Amino acid sequence: MTQVYLDNAATTQIRDEVIDAMTKVMKQHYGNASSTHSFGRSSKSLIEKSRKTIASYLNASAGEIVFTSGGTEADNLVLRSAVRDLQVEHIITSRIEHHAVLHTVEQLQKEYHISISYVNIDATGQVDFSHLGELLQNPKKTLVSLMHVNNEIGNLLDIQRVADLCKANKALFHSDTVQSVGHYELDLQKIPIDFLAASAHKFHGPKGVGFAFVRKNSGLKPLIFGGEQERGLRAGTESVHNIVGIEEALKLAYSNLETERAYIEDLKRYFIDKLKAAISGVTFNGCSGDMETSTYTLVNVCLPVSVEKSAMLLFQLDLKGIACSKGSACQSGSTQSSHVLAELLSDADLQKPSIRFSFSSYNTKEELDYVIEILKEFTDH
Amino acid sequence: MTQVYLDNAATTQIRDEVIDAMTKVMKQHYGNASSTHSFGRSSKSLIEKSRKTIASYLNASAGEIVFTSGGTEADNLVLRSAVRDLQVEHIITSRIEHHAVLHTVEQLQKEYHISISYVNIDATGQVDFSHLGELLQNPKKTLVSLMHVNNEIGNLLDIQRVADLCKANKALFHSDTVQSVGHYELDLQKIPIDFLAASAHKFHGPKGVGFAFVRKNSGLKPLIFGGEQERGLRAGTESVHNIVGIEEALKLAYSNLETERAYIEDLKRYFIDKLKAAISGVTFNGCSGDMETSTYTLVNVCLPVSVEKSAMLLFQLDLKGIACSKGSACQSGSTQSSHVLAELLSDADLQKPSIRFSFSSYNTKEELDYVIEILKEFTDH
Ligand SMILES: Cc1ncc(COP(=O)(O)O)c(C=O)c1O
Ligand SMILES: Cc1ncc(COP(=O)(O)O)c(C=O)c1O
Repeated sequence: MTQVYLDNAATTQIRDEVIDAMTKVMKQHYGNASSTHSFGRSSKSLIEKSRKTIASYLNASAGEIVFTSGGTEADNLVLRSAVRDLQVEHIITSRIEHHAVLHTVEQLQKEYHISISYVNIDATGQVDFSHLGELLQNPKKTLVSLMHVNNEIGNLLDIQRVADLCKANKALFHSDTVQSVGHYELDLQKIPIDFLAASAHKFHGPKGVGFAFVRKNSGLKPLIFGGEQERGLRAGTESVHNIVGIEEALKLAYSNLETERAYIEDLKRYFIDKLKAAISGVTFNGCSGDMETSTYTLVNVCLPVSVEKSAMLLFQLDLKGIACSKGSACQSGSTQSSHVLAELLSDADLQKPSIRFSFSSYNTKEELDYVIEILKEFTDH
Repeated sequence: MTQVYLDNAATTQIRDEVIDAMTKVMKQHYGNASSTHSFGRSSKSLIEKSRKTIASYLNASAGEIVFTSGGTEADNLVLRSAVRDLQVEHIITSRIEHHAVLHTVEQLQKEYHISISYVNIDATGQVDFSHLGELLQNPKKTLVSLMHVNNEIGNLLDIQRVADLCKANKALFHSDTVQSVGHYELDLQKIPIDFLAASAHKFHGPKGVGFAFVRKNSGLKPLIFGGEQERGLRAGTESVHNIVGIEEALKLAYSNLETERAYIEDLKRYFIDKLKAAISGVTFNGCSGDMETSTYTLVNVCLPVSVEKSAMLLFQLDLKGIACSKGSACQSGSTQSSHVLAELLSDADLQKPSIRFSFSSYNTKEELDYVIEILKEFTDH
């Protein structure tokens, strides 16, 4: 059966080189990185090499990279400690953040009675910078948490601008960069951001490992307490194979960035053009139809399909071997409707099926042709 | 060079079958378990199969197993939520618990001003049950956190007795079973325990995955917020390969339990007998010299070595290719001295080197002979 995987924003296929590196570690380096004997030291040095490599790609220093069990944990670590240990009393975020941020912020509000401000966004999901500027006038100690690339609609945020604005207003800035690390270059010397979160499985690495970037002398404290791993910022025996996996994945992502980006960008442009030609009335949610203001890795398509047929669409696509996503699979089980689209679309458009197609360098134009054929059938009849 | 790995309480070698199973998953099943398409469903079904298998070995139900990034996270999840969500105001623990419990409890005291009681232990590290009974008279809502097998001195706790006592006194009971799951059978229908924590890398599984057993209807809430994974109890994309790894490791551990236990028990007995014969004045810390009251997987040896030589001992053992541990490598970097031995030993004995040797079925008597030869040299001259 034809199998077309177009759900790369939910997760990606692990590269063979990454699997090989991980398997090798599991076979040969099983020491506990906290042990001082040779078995332990060999694991420790693998971890420290990974930390250095990752830091170098982001122009950060190794001590600023804290390995976690994924993007969600990294978001939780930063947000909770900012409130508990850095005395943040006010969080500015948006209603179209990932649940790893939104639900954590809501939980912190319950626990600590902090105030939350949601910055205005327009109908394409773009942040209203003048509103953000106003919100930053709040005299309470403030943290801004805004994602770099939106996982559902692909909107790109100008994080340099947000970071500068936060700095000018003495607010902390955290960005969920789970959808951008490995896909966009980030220079953390240039961008005065305090924290960011990343996850390996979004750039062809293993699931269950990520990192937080934690700017030096930030005063952050752990989410998970116990041993002194990660310089006291994250207790628990390190997952050496997963850490080597994220290193290898990030290395390959950034070494091949230009070529793969050009390739995927071309796929996206092709898909948009063909879709427009094939299906009249198709629209693109958020900024995802625009190559400049959205990530090259995804489009979110709103299809002119009747309510009756709409329910069957994803099911049909699945039957035809096409993996894509309604809402965002990676956050809450894609049977739930999208909180992001609910913010943006009219009631009429919310009735129509919206589907996220997200690309990787493993995809081909032939696959996209196949998908368009099927979508066309569906909308024609 | 001879390499003898006797630090299996810090971490274990991954079994080949486990690595193979994990590699296969990474190659063939990369879907996000939250996605509803076929790629997602195949990952989801692997995870649910793992959950079921693990539950069946513990006589629990699948819904009571919550996958985490390891034992430390499982301890943190249980302890924090017990205080925050279950209104626990009093925690009874002991001073010889792992730091994943001790440091977490201390942190919770700072945040929530709960009271902590440390149950008395005797010079061998055994819990004073009548003191525990007294402490349980406290009218505040209480949780007891006592480990099943001590990671440094190997003491076995009668968790059936503690669980019954807690039940009779309406206290919650959590046990850090990181050193016992995979090494001892646990029947969670028989033992009225509320929570336990386990970690794969202690029974020849991968590092960076574990689980909490959370008794049905306990009311526990997440430590890490975000998506609805793990029935809403642990957000973050599931580490499918690691979860399949812990399943495979636990299955092999319990399928081979009788044979491997007999084999390792025999190693331990042999080691103790030979050590006693070779080195006069050797003693065993905690209960670890006694086959009945300590785990078969480790001994903690106090050697009659002068202070001057003591500093060199671990270094020398490492030079000779012998991996073992002073204090517990798995918790805080073994350069720190042991908080457990500090509770038990006299000042004179604390001056002497204490070393933990921990065994697995990969060890042989020849390896033990080699170690004893070297220890003998060291104590003779
Ligand atoms: C008794 C005990 N509890 C908890 C842990 C922590 O488990 P993990 O390393 O999986 O976080 C360990 C060892 O590391 C342990 O020996
Ligand atoms: C924007 C964003 N943030 C956070 C996460 C969570 O990362 P992880 O799955 O590694 O916990 C995801 C995807 O799952 C995401 O797309």
